Amino acid sequence: MPELKVNFDILSPVKFLVRSAEVYPDKVAVVYGDERYTYRQFYERVDRLASALISRGVGKGDKVAFICPNTPPMLEAHYAVPMIGAALVSVNIRLSAQEVNYILDHSDAKAVFADNEFAHLVNARPGALPKVEALVNICDVSAEKPLDGPSYPDFLATGSSKPVTIDVDDEYRVATINYTSGTTGLPKGVMYHHRGAYLNAIGEMLECNFIHDSVYLWTLPMFHCNGWCFTWGVTAMGGTHVCLRQVAPAEIFRLIETEGVSHLCAAPTVLISMANYPGARGYQMLRRLEIMTAGAPPSPTIIQTMETMGANITHTYGLTEVFGPHSVCAWKAEWNDLPLEEKAKIKARQGVPFILTHYMDVVDPKTMQPVPRDGVTI
Amino acid sequence: MPELKVNFDILSPVKFLVRSAEVYPDKVAVVYGDERYTYRQFYERVDRLASALISRGVGKGDKVAFICPNTPPMLEAHYAVPMIGAALVSVNIRLSAQEVNYILDHSDAKAVFADNEFAHLVNARPGALPKVEALVNICDVSAEKPLDGPSYPDFLATGSSKPVTIDVDDEYRVATINYTSGTTGLPKGVMYHHRGAYLNAIGEMLECNFIHDSVYLWTLPMFHCNGWCFTWGVTAMGGTHVCLRQVAPAEIFRLIETEGVSHLCAAPTVLISMANYPGARGYQMLRRLEIMTAGAPPSPTIIQTMETMGANITHTYGLTEVFGPHSVCAWKAEWNDLPLEEKAKIKARQGVPFILTHYMDVVDPKTMQPVPRDGVTI
Repeated sequence: MPELKVNFDILSPVKFLVRSAEVYPDKVAVVYGDERYTYRQFYERVDRLASALISRGVGKGDKVAFICPNTPPMLEAHYAVPMIGAALVSVNIRLSAQEVNYILDHSDAKAVFADNEFAHLVNARPGALPKVEALVNICDVSAEKPLDGPSYPDFLATGSSKPVTIDVDDEYRVATINYTSGTTGLPKGVMYHHRGAYLNAIGEMLECNFIHDSVYLWTLPMFHCNGWCFTWGVTAMGGTHVCLRQVAPAEIFRLIETEGVSHLCAAPTVLISMANYPGARGYQMLRRLEIMTAGAPPSPTIIQTMETMGANITHTYGLTEVFGPHSVCAWKAEWNDLPLEEKAKIKARQGVPFILTHYMDVVDPKTMQPVPRDGVTI
Repeated sequence: MPELKVNFDILSPVKFLVRSAEVYPDKVAVVYGDERYTYRQFYERVDRLASALISRGVGKGDKVAFICPNTPPMLEAHYAVPMIGAALVSVNIRLSAQEVNYILDHSDAKAVFADNEFAHLVNARPGALPKVEALVNICDVSAEKPLDGPSYPDFLATGSSKPVTIDVDDEYRVATINYTSGTTGLPKGVMYHHRGAYLNAIGEMLECNFIHDSVYLWTLPMFHCNGWCFTWGVTAMGGTHVCLRQVAPAEIFRLIETEGVSHLCAAPTVLISMANYPGARGYQMLRRLEIMTAGAPPSPTIIQTMETMGANITHTYGLTEVFGPHSVCAWKAEWNDLPLEEKAKIKARQGVPFILTHYMDVVDPKTMQPVPRDGVTI
């Protein structure tokens, strides 16, 4: 039991896991292929990772990098690293080796965890990463250990499942650093503090009607704004995380069916691949699938195809600098009876703030003056 | 547009109204009998009240008391008063005249608004309330103006519908003061700050699955912990407030039907009156009714009767000192298939923290040691 002040408690997304492990200890928290972890087990694995990091001298203010697709270790890192006052650097696995090493160096990463498919991106020559003190191999596709360090389970085994005290004394402490894609120069590190991560995680949940029995499929990379903060939001609600190593429509449809997926986030390209998947023809979802999409505007045709199958699309927009999506097409009851085509056109727009975003202006980039809106969407 | 800092925005529940007025300007925000206010109108009325208060010299640090049942002015006060940096004192209308005047004096109320059914509770003799500078009559049951001041509409008319700047520079500024019932002595004023009100409002919404098209019936007094912060939470979600002057089962059932009510909060006694209402026999709700109840534990029989009609009961517990309910019976999927009687027994218990409550211990009052729990409910 952490020490609490009477009128104040720090907002930290790590606390969501502590609460869900207490309330739903035997509920399935994480699914990955045949692996299944209950909330109690999820929390224990996080405590093992956190205490193993502490025993390697990682703590307050340090940075821990993960180069890993959407597998359970990546999710566990989102709790274990911020929990000990350190910052998680989730590296985009699509970057070049040069960019990855730039990020490892620039962030002063003290520990680096790499999935064995992506370990080649890390410059493992002796002395190449002088600041790195621990290397860990996440052996997911094979037993191969390309980096000079233990496997992830062996590393966890050096820790303890005893609850680790959340070592965060300031809600503005940095919880994660997300590097931009570097399209306009070298990647820049965006610092997410505990308060912002907490609030945005809840903010996303409010926009997509996530509830305690929702099941979330990890089609969106966790290295994108920490999975738009769903890494924490899903846990807050006591939902189930369904991990997904590779985004392929056949596997997505299989998991929707077998795991009872109710929510996913994805770029419009993923929706295109789903809509065009041969097995999707005439497909009807057993459970309404809430899809949050962002990036490019989804085409009305894709929206219509997906909604005919039983999905509900919510179009949002955001950027790394603001913790992920923050503007949305907020649905209105008077649109319910429009033809599907008309609805799809409205859904392809967005431009009003999230509930927890409070205010937003859309400005003309030339004049920097607010663009007149119809009060609902741009 | 208020001035914003790049990495920080004050958490204030007043901002929920600004956002919903922007996103849902033409949606019905408030219903009271034949009165209907859209979000745009609700916000305009709030701005009128706020600017009228400012013009009477009420501002930062001042207190404004309302002695009023659940009618629109009471709801408007929850935004207009905190918006100008003042604190709202929602007085329990069931208290004695002596207690009411004690609260008006003790809180240093600078303005007092009283519904004409309850104005007799205010000591209106000249000089009796030397700190009060403005008295306003809320003429709801009649045109009578018992207090030496204008009617509520006349008072609003002295203000402007132009957006009033939210004058809150610190999220720990007091937004409301809620006096306890005084069962253990004189009533004590519990101060709710903007941050706490904001977080608890969202916290309540997460526990009762409130979404944008939900319709909330005001069976719970707004003077109880600011209506368990639903005064702000319903607005945050863009839902509809259905005001209710007097709690009577016939009227409750009528409004459930005519307004499509989806949510209400109530003490178990209200549920008893609903369950025993002759018109409730064989009644089937058209829309699932989410009921949050707290105070005494509801009897399994009452829960069963209400759920047979189509309600879903969530049992919570809290107190004035913590912004309302904070512990809950968090439902688990494995209980779904239990006989209704068994379910009702589980629902009558509670004892795990809300999502936004983070931690909670239940202690034996004699030993102050945590009581062992089954991990879910006490």
